[in-house]
Amino acid sequence: MSFSVTILGSGAAIPTSRRNPTAQYVQCSERHVLIDCGEGTQIQIRKLGIKFQRINHILISHLHGDHYFGLVGLLSTMHLMGREKSIQIFGPPGLKALIMSQIHAGGGGFTFEINFIELEKDSSGILFEDAKIKINYFPLSHRVSTSGFVITQKVKERKLRVDKAKEDGVKIEHYHRLKAGEDIEFEGKVFLSENYTESSGPELKYAFCSDTEYMSSVIEFVKGVDLLYHEATFLEDLRDRAIATKHSTASDAANIAKEASVGKLLMGHLSARYENGNLHIEEARPIFENCLVAEDGDQFIL
Amino acid sequence: MSFSVTILGSGAAIPTSRRNPTAQYVQCSERHVLIDCGEGTQIQIRKLGIKFQRINHILISHLHGDHYFGLVGLLSTMHLMGREKSIQIFGPPGLKALIMSQIHAGGGGFTFEINFIELEKDSSGILFEDAKIKINYFPLSHRVSTSGFVITQKVKERKLRVDKAKEDGVKIEHYHRLKAGEDIEFEGKVFLSENYTESSGPELKYAFCSDTEYMSSVIEFVKGVDLLYHEATFLEDLRDRAIATKHSTASDAANIAKEASVGKLLMGHLSARYENGNLHIEEARPIFENCLVAEDGDQFIL
Repeated sequence: MSFSVTILGSGAAIPTSRRNPTAQYVQCSERHVLIDCGEGTQIQIRKLGIKFQRINHILISHLHGDHYFGLVGLLSTMHLMGREKSIQIFGPPGLKALIMSQIHAGGGGFTFEINFIELEKDSSGILFEDAKIKINYFPLSHRVSTSGFVITQKVKERKLRVDKAKEDGVKIEHYHRLKAGEDIEFEGKVFLSENYTESSGPELKYAFCSDTEYMSSVIEFVKGVDLLYHEATFLEDLRDRAIATKHSTASDAANIAKEASVGKLLMGHLSARYENGNLHIEEARPIFENCLVAEDGDQFIL
Repeated sequence: MSFSVTILGSGAAIPTSRRNPTAQYVQCSERHVLIDCGEGTQIQIRKLGIKFQRINHILISHLHGDHYFGLVGLLSTMHLMGREKSIQIFGPPGLKALIMSQIHAGGGGFTFEINFIELEKDSSGILFEDAKIKINYFPLSHRVSTSGFVITQKVKERKLRVDKAKEDGVKIEHYHRLKAGEDIEFEGKVFLSENYTESSGPELKYAFCSDTEYMSSVIEFVKGVDLLYHEATFLEDLRDRAIATKHSTASDAANIAKEASVGKLLMGHLSARYENGNLHIEEARPIFENCLVAEDGDQFIL
């Protein structure tokens, strides 16, 4: 039932020797999701010892190279390593054609099925849902069609009150249904789930917003998430650059975090001009205290 | 008048944590050439402290991803850093469309001119020539259209015999022309270049062959080069794989080196299955003694 976010790349358009372009690996209740896939992502995955054949879902936010130029190489490597399991790729219209034209130029194909699901501009909804996780998408505001994502770990299985269950003679074979919230009728007696189990905590949510200018409609989509990743390419002194390129400042990210009452703010996509994230923290903290800056290799547990 | 080859990536199709996919940086008489550009090449260039805005010529051998997936990212970064100088890119038919479709999908363009020169399958000739260097290409035999390259550092300026020139009253303003091989007539006297200068050594040549099966026609094109890079994806015990994938073994590479009487053989493009190049050296050395295996970051001076 773990839920973690690993930063594979925390940089912006120009990679530096310390910051690779955007990519994140999210592990949530044994589901494995890659968000964005800048150049060199497969090398980062390998360096960090992540088993990338486990990845079943890839979410691409938009078609700027620092968010997807590594995808074709990652898929090629999965193929060369004999992957058989299908994969789902969610991204903007045009992504499939760009990837497949490169594969065809090399005379290649895939040993596994790729389901490309292209997201319409300015749309929102559910991308994926099963018993354990849910993935939503929503529009951001950038120079090209861009989506943000929320990954939800659904309410966990309830905890069994083992002593009481034993005391009242509940059969072991009924434990599983009680933990799933079902009431049991057995030999004329009714066993209510709520009497024999207790909540194991609320849903956990992670939201990803990159790249975007400040956009108030985002607040509703990321309301109350436990961890919000929001791009903070610039600081306020470069507000002009932020406006011109449709990016956010550290203040923008902090304002979204504050207005959405999130648990923690993680900033990233820092312009290559910044040596480190100190000034971003300094600018964001007076607005939203619980904030930090992503570094390549960092792992955050929700 | 330097001539060096820096290995940015020595691996094959599947990158490992020690071997990036193929890319080499060649510096020859102040000309700066990139050969192939696998994913992550721009990161390698940055890590090795190479000034990549100096690169004026890029040669792409073929359209398998491990030889060009890094090109679009490198060009994007050159653009973002405000490059103004034009660049020449030589590669197989289709390369321009693959690169430009990705740039257009991101709504982008370039601050500099890119001259794509697409090489016809199975053709050979001169790609570039100026006073100091010459670049030739020739066909290799792989699963898709593939070219090899030879970079020649032309005969250097001759060395002036300063003492003799002074003794015979040659004017300083004539030194330059004598060193360039011209004879001078001045105040009724003839000064022959060959009397006042001496050779500063022969042409130097570097040949690049990746990817290819053993192909005897290559021998003529790389005859007598000082340094031959030849792929050696496999060892002889995987001859079946080499045939099926149209790659070479260490023995193939050594046989080409021997038959072409090259100065030194550099093997690369090792399959990810090999921990290091020891077995490649062991297999190649009985055929051609002066051989080694490329590692990422190595620099070879001709």
